[in-house]
Amino acid sequence: MSPESRIGVVGATGAVGTLTLQLLAERGYREVRAFASARSTGRTVRFGREELPVEAATPEALGSAGLDLCLFSVGASASRELVPGATRAGVLCIDKSSAFRLEEGVPLVVPEVNGERALEHDGIVANPNCCAIPLACVLKPLAEAAGIRALRIATYQSVSGAGAQSMERLRAQDPAGGNLGMDWDFDGEELEEETKLREETRKILELPELRISATCVRVPVLVGHAEAVWLETEEDLSPEAARALLDEAPGVRLAELPTPREAAGGDDVLVGRIRRDPAARHGLALWLVCDNLRKGAALNAIQIAELLLAPRPIAAR
Amino acid sequence: MSPESRIGVVGATGAVGTLTLQLLAERGYREVRAFASARSTGRTVRFGREELPVEAATPEALGSAGLDLCLFSVGASASRELVPGATRAGVLCIDKSSAFRLEEGVPLVVPEVNGERALEHDGIVANPNCCAIPLACVLKPLAEAAGIRALRIATYQSVSGAGAQSMERLRAQDPAGGNLGMDWDFDGEELEEETKLREETRKILELPELRISATCVRVPVLVGHAEAVWLETEEDLSPEAARALLDEAPGVRLAELPTPREAAGGDDVLVGRIRRDPAARHGLALWLVCDNLRKGAALNAIQIAELLLAPRPIAAR
Repeated sequence: MSPESRIGVVGATGAVGTLTLQLLAERGYREVRAFASARSTGRTVRFGREELPVEAATPEALGSAGLDLCLFSVGASASRELVPGATRAGVLCIDKSSAFRLEEGVPLVVPEVNGERALEHDGIVANPNCCAIPLACVLKPLAEAAGIRALRIATYQSVSGAGAQSMERLRAQDPAGGNLGMDWDFDGEELEEETKLREETRKILELPELRISATCVRVPVLVGHAEAVWLETEEDLSPEAARALLDEAPGVRLAELPTPREAAGGDDVLVGRIRRDPAARHGLALWLVCDNLRKGAALNAIQIAELLLAPRPIAAR
Repeated sequence: MSPESRIGVVGATGAVGTLTLQLLAERGYREVRAFASARSTGRTVRFGREELPVEAATPEALGSAGLDLCLFSVGASASRELVPGATRAGVLCIDKSSAFRLEEGVPLVVPEVNGERALEHDGIVANPNCCAIPLACVLKPLAEAAGIRALRIATYQSVSGAGAQSMERLRAQDPAGGNLGMDWDFDGEELEEETKLREETRKILELPELRISATCVRVPVLVGHAEAVWLETEEDLSPEAARALLDEAPGVRLAELPTPREAAGGDDVLVGRIRRDPAARHGLALWLVCDNLRKGAALNAIQIAELLLAPRPIAAR
């Protein structure tokens, strides 16, 4: 994107939308407009040193606002309603909901992992789930080096992943009342979050048959998602070799015992505890953490936008 | 034990010691004395409707107090100092620290799993780590039915596992400051807690070669430890068959999405989310939670004591 790109931020009053505005201001964008549901119109939101009025997000408003690109951080049903109105008017849409992620023809993009796929879009690029993004950043170099046969993942997901209201509830609660939760739709076998993590990881890594078993858990932490990961590889990969690959991987930083507090506010995926998994013939265990609002959502979407609006010839534009 | 058994509670002012006194009172024991480090003498501790004076725990005091049995909930170095004084005087010692757990000739006991081993003691019975106990309760019937080849475990351990002071720190903290932690000794490869969990699980289940990979994590929850578990079995075991076995397992209760809050204050290990692990040829994933202060510590130790002091002929007494 250039500073002149006209950008709409939809869902501008939420946890991810607020951070999206902050990151756009920090990066020097000037032509930014804020949209949210009708009940937020009349409010303003912070954009650098300015306050932007919140405009009502309707398909018509988004289509007629003269935007180059729209960043959506709203729920899947709102995205399904709003995104087509914007794409019809030629506005490039980066959608952070699950609405389009698995649709054929919609690239699902982590720039460090499969950025080239973003260029194949037909008006929509989807931003993956907040656990799938850091996982893909870490797995990509390992998969290229040794192949991945199977994955087991236990997540430790902060409440900010459930939105600004959940953050307020955690802030207001007695710390002794902290609990673990599994606050996602449950079909009796699997949480919806686990299905997303599996299907999206397969799509991003382009390994459609990859065997993945995930257990997703909400923890009483404000910001920062962590994942305990076991990966079985096709060929042997030593912890030292994996560490060397990850030390070179874009967007990834090695750390000894990384925590959400260490990751929060930063752009990197922190990875540590890389060791052999004695339970597998060829396997590694590792631990990763990232700021779920930044690399897990707002930052990744802006990085996609910057790939697409780069000041260079882009095939799909 | 009979109500007349003379029981010493060592570490009586700590989180587990306090609960041990409560459980002994609830179970009708009357001849109970409380011991702690010298700096706590002069204080009293609650025992049912009474207050007991805290006596200084020294090897001599424990050996000369006319006790039948002593329940130790102190650190490993204090146990190493105190337990021999008591055993020399013929006091049966149930030790909750890691001091003797892996020693040959010291039974490491979960009554529902290997209670018969308790009878082989030579003065000391060890109580396992707070994550190893519920894990063994759940794995035992599955191992008997299908054999276990390998285990992967991610823990979600509450701060009460780190003692009363950690509980106070969590109570005093801003909820927004919650973080994950790995507050155990770290050798650069593995946390001491993970080594314990592996070695103790092998000893309890009498599977000395069992391949186990664990990632242990502290979560900002007051009471209740949870574990996401993947087990590879020798033979096929369907989730339905596993559920039926666990429904019959002593000390275990099936639940759909059990949480620490649901487990806290109860005696059962709650287990749910039993499903196939698509990453293994024969494998299951499951999720378990238990009150780490009760079944994970104080209750399990009292159950061991009750096995040993049962009003029936006991070989090793």
